[in-house]
Amino acid sequence: MLYIGIDLGGTGIKAGVVDEKGVILCKDSCPTLPERGYEAVIRDMAALAVKVAEQSGHGMDEIEAIGVGLPGIMDPRSGRIPFCTNLAWHDVPLVEEMAKYVSTPVFVDNDATVAGLAESVAGISAGCESSVFVTLGTGVGGGVVLGGKVFSGSHGVATEIGHMITVVDGEPCTCGNKGCFERYASATALIREGRRLCEAKPETELKKVVNGDLSAINAKHVIDLAKAGDPDCAALFDRYAYHLCVGLVNIINFYDPEVIVLGGGVSHAGQFLLDAVREKLPDMVFYKDMPYARVELAKLTNDAGIIGAAMLGR
Amino acid sequence: MLYIGIDLGGTGIKAGVVDEKGVILCKDSCPTLPERGYEAVIRDMAALAVKVAEQSGHGMDEIEAIGVGLPGIMDPRSGRIPFCTNLAWHDVPLVEEMAKYVSTPVFVDNDATVAGLAESVAGISAGCESSVFVTLGTGVGGGVVLGGKVFSGSHGVATEIGHMITVVDGEPCTCGNKGCFERYASATALIREGRRLCEAKPETELKKVVNGDLSAINAKHVIDLAKAGDPDCAALFDRYAYHLCVGLVNIINFYDPEVIVLGGGVSHAGQFLLDAVREKLPDMVFYKDMPYARVELAKLTNDAGIIGAAMLGR
Repeated sequence: MLYIGIDLGGTGIKAGVVDEKGVILCKDSCPTLPERGYEAVIRDMAALAVKVAEQSGHGMDEIEAIGVGLPGIMDPRSGRIPFCTNLAWHDVPLVEEMAKYVSTPVFVDNDATVAGLAESVAGISAGCESSVFVTLGTGVGGGVVLGGKVFSGSHGVATEIGHMITVVDGEPCTCGNKGCFERYASATALIREGRRLCEAKPETELKKVVNGDLSAINAKHVIDLAKAGDPDCAALFDRYAYHLCVGLVNIINFYDPEVIVLGGGVSHAGQFLLDAVREKLPDMVFYKDMPYARVELAKLTNDAGIIGAAMLGR
Repeated sequence: MLYIGIDLGGTGIKAGVVDEKGVILCKDSCPTLPERGYEAVIRDMAALAVKVAEQSGHGMDEIEAIGVGLPGIMDPRSGRIPFCTNLAWHDVPLVEEMAKYVSTPVFVDNDATVAGLAESVAGISAGCESSVFVTLGTGVGGGVVLGGKVFSGSHGVATEIGHMITVVDGEPCTCGNKGCFERYASATALIREGRRLCEAKPETELKKVVNGDLSAINAKHVIDLAKAGDPDCAALFDRYAYHLCVGLVNIINFYDPEVIVLGGGVSHAGQFLLDAVREKLPDMVFYKDMPYARVELAKLTNDAGIIGAAMLGR
């Protein structure tokens, strides 16, 4: 069985032919250029799908399904994309448009969901019946696999893990609420707290590292200083890890998965991040004498979007 | 098909014979007297099961399964109850003990889970593929039905909705964490905030209602005054409803069920509670243009424990 996975991002479209084990046989990419409007973008997606099928030596008639991962959701009632901020899409009939060019069935899901599915087929959570993938990037996304299948809820609005509220009356979020998890567990949170640290304590090491330019602070600066033992960044990172663990405890209390997979930019902190989480979590889970989800780092990186999208049709 | 449901509480054991539609054919009860130790309690549970079967005119060989709902969880690896605070149980081999008296298969789950299952079979969420039952009592419990089945997670520790953290660094919880949802959405929370109100504002109506005895304040005092338009209790209840909606938004973001059912003591506030929730929730959900769970009041009351427990074996 062969599938095509399309990873649709704001800058690039990536597509690949993938087998049922999640192995990419062939892949290619093209720029998204979303300012052209959705019709042109979707036409290019379909063309790229046909192109990678040809490159792999297979006809489109041999492709079981096309899966698309994108930074948004699909309304399961209509097959339309209500909105996709990065692409400035509003109510786009993605499945209908794709059908103009290819007769292969098209499945669509959120990019974090797709990355979680990829890990559960060919990555760190392979073989697990249930897993929750948490992307710690600009925001925080979630991909939930239950009983071996992507879990999207009854209306397709589930697994918005980044927008669970963990701090009532906390930091304002882009979604209109206050205190969403992603305001505290994203790379953006590390940057914000890094800037606040420099403002509150001008002699701190972090400010020296960026030569006083607070707009230059990124998550890696904070993490690297914390790793190196700088007390201010270590305290900041410790607080970050606590907030992350609050979300992980909530994930355990809700889904009780076999494994929680950490992906996205902050997960590049690697073992340092894992150590911080694994130190705090045992004291925070509700049932302290019962087994609970192990926490791991994502294994697949750039190809997770193609693999997971392809697996949507499996 | 006939089933026996046992609702095991700290003061009483209730049991009933239930058909596959969740209709109770016959029921009876006896005191728990947990101070006798678990062996005596479990012997009485088995005897009560046999007794209700006889009363219904059926032999135990006609009973497909016995289900037990209790204020704790079962470790699915061992069939033992790690702990059950109300009964002072620690690591009790419930299934093994029951097998000394009856050969019928025994299934066990948390009381909130069981109540949720009852609602989804014979109550307000009947016919729904997915529902989340939230008990607003002394604590906050959760019962999750996904795909028509009780969802307990990979290790049996899921659906501890009351212990999701919604207020980082908030009120200390009995579980050892701070800021758990049940510290803000339980009847206990209304009582605590009622007392604080009376301490901060001695001339408030609530203090007069209890004749100055703050230890006499219960959730109904606060709710009744809020309903009657007392501005202090109305503000207190409004804040309570906000905290409740924070938890409901998190439930929607995680599970996206068809329906959320509110049960337990605070749900007796009825339409007044529903109105407060339904007013706040639309502005708080993430996908404002997409359908999401409707919120309803529990329909089954005292019998939910028997019905839901019986349905565990269905």
